[in-house]
Parts: sequence; C-alpha cells; structure tokens
Amino acid sequence: MTETPAAFTEQDHFTEQDYALRMDRAAREAAVVGLAGLLATPGPDLMWLCGYRPAAATEHLTLLVLTADSEPRLLVPASERPDAEGAPGAVRISAWKDGQDPYAAAAGLLRPHGRYGVSDSTWALHLLGLQEVLPLTTYRPLSTALPMLRVVKDEHEVARLAAAGAAADAAYDDVLSLRFAGRRETDVAADLGRLLREHGHGRVDFTVVGSGPDGADPHHRTGRRTLTAGDMVVLDFGGHRDGYGSGITRTVHVGEPTAEERRVHEVVQDAQQAAFEAVRPDVPCQDVDRVARTVITDAGYGGRGVPRTGHGIGVTAHEAPHLAEGEEQPLLPGMCFSLVAGIHLPGRFGIRLGDVVTCTETGGRRLNTASRELAVVK
Amino acid sequence: MTETPAAFTEQDHFTEQDYALRMDRAAREAAVVGLAGLLATPGPDLMWLCGYRPAAATEHLTLLVLTADSEPRLLVPASERPDAEGAPGAVRISAWKDGQDPYAAAAGLLRPHGRYGVSDSTWALHLLGLQEVLPLTTYRPLSTALPMLRVVKDEHEVARLAAAGAAADAAYDDVLSLRFAGRRETDVAADLGRLLREHGHGRVDFTVVGSGPDGADPHHRTGRRTLTAGDMVVLDFGGHRDGYGSGITRTVHVGEPTAEERRVHEVVQDAQQAAFEAVRPDVPCQDVDRVARTVITDAGYGGRGVPRTGHGIGVTAHEAPHLAEGEEQPLLPGMCFSLVAGIHLPGRFGIRLGDVVTCTETGGRRLNTASRELAVVK
Repeated sequence: MTETPAAFTEQDHFTEQDYALRMDRAAREAAVVGLAGLLATPGPDLMWLCGYRPAAATEHLTLLVLTADSEPRLLVPASERPDAEGAPGAVRISAWKDGQDPYAAAAGLLRPHGRYGVSDSTWALHLLGLQEVLPLTTYRPLSTALPMLRVVKDEHEVARLAAAGAAADAAYDDVLSLRFAGRRETDVAADLGRLLREHGHGRVDFTVVGSGPDGADPHHRTGRRTLTAGDMVVLDFGGHRDGYGSGITRTVHVGEPTAEERRVHEVVQDAQQAAFEAVRPDVPCQDVDRVARTVITDAGYGGRGVPRTGHGIGVTAHEAPHLAEGEEQPLLPGMCFSLVAGIHLPGRFGIRLGDVVTCTETGGRRLNTASRELAVVK
Repeated sequence: MTETPAAFTEQDHFTEQDYALRMDRAAREAAVVGLAGLLATPGPDLMWLCGYRPAAATEHLTLLVLTADSEPRLLVPASERPDAEGAPGAVRISAWKDGQDPYAAAAGLLRPHGRYGVSDSTWALHLLGLQEVLPLTTYRPLSTALPMLRVVKDEHEVARLAAAGAAADAAYDDVLSLRFAGRRETDVAADLGRLLREHGHGRVDFTVVGSGPDGADPHHRTGRRTLTAGDMVVLDFGGHRDGYGSGITRTVHVGEPTAEERRVHEVVQDAQQAAFEAVRPDVPCQDVDRVARTVITDAGYGGRGVPRTGHGIGVTAHEAPHLAEGEEQPLLPGMCFSLVAGIHLPGRFGIRLGDVVTCTETGGRRLNTASRELAVVK
C-alpha cells in the first residue's frame, strides 16, 4: 500500500473566519440579485456556509437565515442545539421546542414580502410550511439565484480537494499491484472502494470498472464480467475525504497492449492534455470541451468521445461549472472541475482519462497527479 | 454466530399487483380528501408506491403522478429510463431529455388548477419548478394530506418487518457471547453494525451503546467510555433489511447485577409488557404510552421513563404513528411500531427494553422475539 503523502494527512481545518467570509459573501451576493436573503437547510449549502452537518435532512426544520442587514441565524429543533453549537461557523442559534410551530419561529426571522433564495434540496414540507405562514414571500432555488456561489473555491477548499485527489491517486497506485485477470469487475470495484477508505475517504461515491466491451459504453457502471488478458479496463472512481470530493479516471491494460491500443490511448492522453492547457480565466467552459473534442475528431474518432468533458466538484461530487457544449460561463480562478477525455469503440473497448483540475490565475493545476500513461496490470 | 432462521432468509418479493393496489389506494384516498392527485419523488413514498428506488434524489426531476381517473405515470430523465423500466410496479414511463424543461413535461400530466399532495422530501427546486409552470396549482405535504398512507402495512410488508426483526434478534443473540468489559462503547457499537450486516441488513441506521451513567441519558448515542464489570449497558440498534426497518432495544449487565438492578429491570419489563398488552385496534396511541408510564410511575420512577413509548417503522426507520401523549390516533390492524419502556437514573445507569410490534385484529404481535430477560455478559 502506498502511503498517502504526509503533507496531505493533516486536516486543513476551516476557521470561524472562513465561514464568516462565506456567509457574508453569500448574503451580499443575494442582495445584489435582489433577494432579501438566503435560506439553507441540511445539505451541502448549509455545510459549506456554516460547517453544520446534521446526520440527515428530516421533517424537523433546521434553517440557516442569511440577510445582508443582520447576523446569521440558525433555527434548529431543541434536541439539535448541542450539535449546532458545536458547528465551526459562528451563528446565532434559536431553538424551537416540541409542540411549537417551527414555521412560525422561522417567520420571525423573515420579511413578510421578502424574496428568498432557498437550498435546492430543501424539503417541500418545509417550503410549504414557510409559504403557508408567510403567503407573500417568494422563493428561488439557490442554484438558479446564485449559480456561482459554491463554485469558486478559496485556497483552503482547493487544499482539501487536493488532499482528496492525492488519496485517490494513492488508491490508483495501489490497485495497479493487484491481480486483474480472472476476477470480476465487481471485485476490482470493491478493491477501489476499500483503497479509497484506506486512504482516508469517509465516503465512496462511485467505483466504475468497465472491461473490454463494457468499457466501450460511456454509461456502463460495473458488471459481473470476468477480466482476462488482453482487456482494456476503464477505472473511474471517487468519493469524499474530509467533506470534499475526489474523482479520477484511468485506463489500464491486462497484459501487453497492441500497437493500436497504445495509439488510441495516446490520442486520449493528447485530448485531455489539450483540454488541460486550454484552462485559464475567462475561457468559456464550452471551449475546453471543444478543444478535447477536436483532438478526438481530428484523430478519426469523431462521435466516440465522452458526452461532456467535465463538471464541478466540491462539497458535492457533481456541481457547476459544466464543461460542455452550450455552456458559455467563463472559467474563474478557484473553480475546480473534472477534465475527462475518452474514446469508446463499441463492442471492443473504451479508454478514458480524467483528473480534477483547478483554474488558477495563470492556467490549470491538476489535483490528480497519478501517472497518465497506459499502465499494464497482471 | 447464530444462523438467521431459514424462514426469514427468503426475500418476500412484492408483486406488480401489490404495487398496483398501493397506487390505487393512494389515488383513491387522495380523491377522498379533495386532492387532484399525488406526486412522489425519489424517497420512501416512491419506493413504497411503485418499487422504484433511484440511487439518490437529485436535481433531475423524477416524478410519479397518481390520479383517480388515469393510470400511474412516472416521469424520469431519459438516462434513467432503463432503471425505471426495471422497477417492479407497473407504471407508464415518460422520459424528458437533456435540454427539455422537465417541469413543462410534468405540467402536461397535471391539472392547471389542481391541488396535489407531494412527498415531504421533494426538493424545493422541483416544487418551485412546478409552481412556476402551473402557478394556480396548490400543494400539501403528503404527511399532512394523507398521514396514514404508508402506516397500515399489508401482510407482505409485515413479513418483511418480521424478517428484519428476526435478523436484529440474531445480531443481539450473537453480541451476548462477545466480550464487553475492557472495551469501549464504540467497539461494541461497531460489533452491532457488523452483526446486523452479517444477518442481511443492507443499511445500519443506529447503534446506541449506553454504559453506566451514559445509559442514564435517554439522548445518549455512543461514547468513548470503557465498559467495566458492574455496568448496566443499554443496546439500541437497527437498520434496514430488504427495504424495511428493524429496531431492537435490550439492556445487558457486565457481570452479576445487584438485587436493585434486577428489580429496576423487572419494572421496565413489566411496563413494556403492559404496553404490549394494551395494543389492539381502536386504542388511541397515547393510551399505550400512558399504560407504560403508569407502571413506571407506580413503581416510584415517575419522570424517569422514556420521552415517548414508540413510533412507526416501515420503509423508513421513523414514521407515524407516534405512541406519545397527545396522539389520539387510534391503532389500526397492520400498523407496525416500536414499543419501548425505560428507566433512567441520572449519574447511575439506564435500562431500556423495546421491540417492534404490529397491531393485529386481536392484539399485538411482537416482531422481535429475542429474550427480554436481563442478560449477563462478560
């Protein structure tokens, strides 16, 4: 087992100040787009804004209220108060008790005619509760109202994503020494999950293993196919470490690849490298996608690529920005996203290669640094 | 390790007919309370109604529409169609494609002025999407509109809950032979989780271990305290097996208990037994709670009991009915719920004892049958 590099094993703790800056920025950006404030319930927004992560979203209302003109307020069920007080972000906590109407309590924190941004995943139960007590309030999903809110990461967040990426790299390095031939895709997938956990992942989100013709389907997850000498094997896996996501895509070959297989892999490497080199501030997302696609098409594999070159990653495994045709959003420093290139040859094999990349002032920086060469496995 | 009884290892498959009956009943009950229909998104309602369980609720709309006057319709993202077609309930599937407006697609299935019941956990993103395309529709949370919908279980559901209960019983039997003294609460909790999985649980929801004074706090989860001879230890654990929940509460003693400890345990056993004997159709939920509480109070432990005697269990770990003071809902045959009695002596120890119980035409039936005597562990 490869050791996770020491520099990444220390948790990069967010401070009260980090959360204060985020909440302040969110409240100000909300005001700019004409909202009276932001409402966040348990889930990625709440965790990102104030560091509070209850075990689950439930029928008991937990609500963070951010407005430009008053301090952050967190309304929680009384039984949750001790947990909420332990959260790293400094918010003023109000608790509602069993038998009390939590929506009436929330109403006291809102303007009767206010328009609020609300977490996408807020339960309908809670939204309807607020709409009933304050019938003149209106609401917009946070992803529509402030699509860029969580998208631009600060340096501490990039450090967490880099640590998650290094752990995924270490898991990849470890898997190369295991046996592939004679085992099923599901066995290798189980290894990938175990290795991610061994390298500090608290959660495994996906472990795709696509061997031979399975790998030629870009939507294939993991099947019961037994791996054999001569198989190309797509590995696409990731999860969460210390609250931030990882995702890495590599393709390995069981035994020596043919000259054609090596050539196709080189095209994919070139396409991913070209996309990487296209990353810099102000470049529209779709341009990065086009750059990769052009390399694939010019090599004679038009229409065999990946559906989209990448998507954002942060406290969720899948978020904005979308590196895809039609997305004109320009890249901004601090954005972090996957960059994947691939070629799928139906009935034969697939090759995909992807890293998480962050956009810096001067260009892209890879947060996965595992070798991108075609690895030969047993 | 105790073998899980053979009768319970076979999965009790729900048929297309089971789901058809549920969907039909739901649509009719919705009409009775004046709703134009029911809308369910990924989560327990959707799984219960049509057997479809996508990996997660997401920003991509998946919506089951049930109305009294037309067949069930399931709207899914195009990429989900194969999974949705594999679901056991027979529904007509419509897929919306990338670039299409899913809410416009949903609008085609709804009445412009309709009032709909909607899953409590439906994302605000989706509810706001529907409210925008159909501004004259109105919505009620399903738990308010039809609180009894999932609460009364059919015989196949009771069989699944019984299988989950038998697995939890087997896990309890197994844990009795392990060492307690010298290990931490977290170690025993990890054993309980592992044993639940060994006995077929796909998900572990809670593993509470409260030793000595920790057990005297009814809200204690699991701490770092090291167990020692003379400790009373509350074990309260459960999860999901084949989609249905389990939950069992037992108290064990490390080494021989004192006469007083035995006496307190007997009071708890008597209280839980009295509550169990009170279970029969038409008895208000709060009466069952009162019966248990009276036994505790009469024995001189008034105010030291559990906050509430029980709650429903089914495809979720925690649902209606609530066996608590103030709940006048009468018990109905097919309801399944926990029944827990306890005494907490602050600074000293706690004792809790609970089973999942179903209400039959003639009275209660326990779905946990592990011994309720005070077990002595090493």
